[in-house]
Amino acid sequence: MADGTSLATEFDALDAALRTAIGAAVDGLQDDAIALLSALVREDSQMGQEAGAQVLMAETFAGLGLEVDAFEIDEAAIRTHPGYSPSLISYAGRRNVVGCHRPAQTTGKSLILNGHIDVVPPGDASRWTHPPFEPVVRDGRLYGRGSGDMKAGIVAYTLAFKALQSLGYAPAAPVFLQSVVEEECTGNGALACLVRGYRADAAIIPEPFAQTLMTAQIGVLWCSITVTGLAAHMIDRTKGTSAIDAALLLAEHMKTLEAEWNAAPHPAYADVPHPINFNLGRIEGGEWTSSVPETCTTHWRLSFYPGMTAAEASATVEQRIRKALETDPRLAGCAATVTWQGFQAPGFEIAANHPMLRLLDDAHRSVAGRPAGTIACTCTTDARFFNLYGDTPATCYGPEATAIHTIDESVSLQSLRDVTAVLALFMAAWCGLSRQGGA
Amino acid sequence: MADGTSLATEFDALDAALRTAIGAAVDGLQDDAIALLSALVREDSQMGQEAGAQVLMAETFAGLGLEVDAFEIDEAAIRTHPGYSPSLISYAGRRNVVGCHRPAQTTGKSLILNGHIDVVPPGDASRWTHPPFEPVVRDGRLYGRGSGDMKAGIVAYTLAFKALQSLGYAPAAPVFLQSVVEEECTGNGALACLVRGYRADAAIIPEPFAQTLMTAQIGVLWCSITVTGLAAHMIDRTKGTSAIDAALLLAEHMKTLEAEWNAAPHPAYADVPHPINFNLGRIEGGEWTSSVPETCTTHWRLSFYPGMTAAEASATVEQRIRKALETDPRLAGCAATVTWQGFQAPGFEIAANHPMLRLLDDAHRSVAGRPAGTIACTCTTDARFFNLYGDTPATCYGPEATAIHTIDESVSLQSLRDVTAVLALFMAAWCGLSRQGGA
Repeated sequence: MADGTSLATEFDALDAALRTAIGAAVDGLQDDAIALLSALVREDSQMGQEAGAQVLMAETFAGLGLEVDAFEIDEAAIRTHPGYSPSLISYAGRRNVVGCHRPAQTTGKSLILNGHIDVVPPGDASRWTHPPFEPVVRDGRLYGRGSGDMKAGIVAYTLAFKALQSLGYAPAAPVFLQSVVEEECTGNGALACLVRGYRADAAIIPEPFAQTLMTAQIGVLWCSITVTGLAAHMIDRTKGTSAIDAALLLAEHMKTLEAEWNAAPHPAYADVPHPINFNLGRIEGGEWTSSVPETCTTHWRLSFYPGMTAAEASATVEQRIRKALETDPRLAGCAATVTWQGFQAPGFEIAANHPMLRLLDDAHRSVAGRPAGTIACTCTTDARFFNLYGDTPATCYGPEATAIHTIDESVSLQSLRDVTAVLALFMAAWCGLSRQGGA
Repeated sequence: MADGTSLATEFDALDAALRTAIGAAVDGLQDDAIALLSALVREDSQMGQEAGAQVLMAETFAGLGLEVDAFEIDEAAIRTHPGYSPSLISYAGRRNVVGCHRPAQTTGKSLILNGHIDVVPPGDASRWTHPPFEPVVRDGRLYGRGSGDMKAGIVAYTLAFKALQSLGYAPAAPVFLQSVVEEECTGNGALACLVRGYRADAAIIPEPFAQTLMTAQIGVLWCSITVTGLAAHMIDRTKGTSAIDAALLLAEHMKTLEAEWNAAPHPAYADVPHPINFNLGRIEGGEWTSSVPETCTTHWRLSFYPGMTAAEASATVEQRIRKALETDPRLAGCAATVTWQGFQAPGFEIAANHPMLRLLDDAHRSVAGRPAGTIACTCTTDARFFNLYGDTPATCYGPEATAIHTIDESVSLQSLRDVTAVLALFMAAWCGLSRQGGA
């Protein structure tokens, strides 16, 4: 039971002994952190397979005494939301899990701590030093798919809450620990939380951005371009137009648009090298090895600056493709259809001097001994939903990781520990603390 | 019953009235030809699905009174043959069908008439004017997948035999009508006939080469190149090397070899524009739209000149790929494995003044009123097995077709009629004729 005594709402007001105690409590929980992270990595939670990891999160939240809200994404409820992205697969059986702390009395500011449970495919597992879903600790790092992106972040906020609890405290304001699906392709997991009503005075997502504070986020689109050429037999080779060749010619036009956008950066990205990346992530084309390919589909991840809507960006891309087909003689007789599925995600900015960011920087400085850098992120995160549609200021602040989305992904365990401490300190200062009756 | 009377063994010796009668008999069978071709087109006989069409051929051969030899490819029996190409799928249930005419007395020269029953995929059926496996006759052409390549050729030799029969004759030497599988990917169907023992004094394959006489055939290889790059997250975009990009860089190197070979043509191809074609027929690459692709596989159909073995050609290609990986800085850190599956098919030449070709030209001239042109073919056919390993001189001579291996394939019905007449005349002159007892 909370006794309602508010201890602090500003970082400077946090008692020095409490700060030290929080750091020590986090240290004392590091084995728990590694155990939870290992258990989460062991759960292969690629798109559509998140259930096992989410059951583990629901149990973990319940173990903290939190009220657990586990719910499938209701696509009908989110489909008309401006933040919706067309889904790739069904949401049946794919649950978000939210651990809810609702104190009897609220004296501080509320907080959402959000992380995504889904991970991207490991690629060729044989190229990993250790199997991607078998966590291994080596030289202060934990290896495995999703270790950095972003199961360590989920562990960090979970253990931050537990650290305060271990000292006999609870946040003096509502805190929602969200473990969501679908961050890597649509963001509809986080959107579903929003539509379900979750709001707070701030939201932090411990994405693995090396303990920087995110002040801007790029917009991201996914699209597929299916090109038809004209197949031919080898004996008529000169008569055919290879759809693979045509798809790659269209890729040149896409890259021209990418270069144009990079040449005129948004102010937030003025100092970021090559902020706009058009990634040809997947390709499949051709029907028969001895025939000139008739169709080829390229799957793109595109990006665009904050301030542009997803619809404006996709219209610009489509216009560029149309123009290429109309004017490039090498594409004569070819056609293309563009499908927008997956991310239709606008970017955003948040002021570096926002009270949440200033407080997070204070907490970081107290742990790391220097100010946190800021990052204008060249990828998308679920933070956009909070900022753009949720009236909930949001940023990312999470551990240092390497090789996310590739072979031998790993996260720094020291960084995991430090982020946990920072989040605990932030929670103490932002939400205030109530002494728990039983502690 | 044959009475054994040999009527002619040279074209000039063919009685003028008999020539006229053969032409009239072929004309009289044109409705049968269209009916059989339509029935064959209706049987979708893509790789692995040849059974229905082969049942029809077995019935047709039996209807001509031929002894029918229908047999599965015995891969164990052909695997060690130098003409073998690594197969793509199992041969279980996939039969060659041979209609065998073995006269009681042989006075002329024996003949193999060979055609392949397999067809290539139709591609996007919605792009066809009519569905690809629903034959349609329009403006003197029959449309449908396989109409030209090469079911019309099979119909031509079948009806040529029937035309002689309708006049009360049978060839005065063994004639084998072969309907084989697997021409479009390995040639192992024709090879299996060879290994089963079929030989003759000549072989003709009515491939749709517009009634030209084939005097040379290019060598063809199929291979798959799997490239590994280094995947990365968008936030680390500069760190990744896209396997799709790497595969396309390797394609540049492949195209350089293609250009070198085209710049130094084999004498038989001196007048052929661009005889060597390296076709990037299929591609699949990438794992996740937002990750830098880690692997990409390209599927190639390559060609090389007669006189080079398949092993020499493939070694040259592998060496070029190795060199590219070692020396092209854009490919640093990338690797490639090459798999040779499907065609490992050497080319060949046959002298234009070979007696078979001279007789075929005589027969053509008598029907078409002008000499047949010759063709140095830039694709492969099953003719290589007869010439290289079977001691059976072989060429191609077949109807005019358009859009083979692509959309709206069709064959000229006039050309089908003329090829049927030429093959009947050739058979009469080459094999000689015996009057059938019952006619």
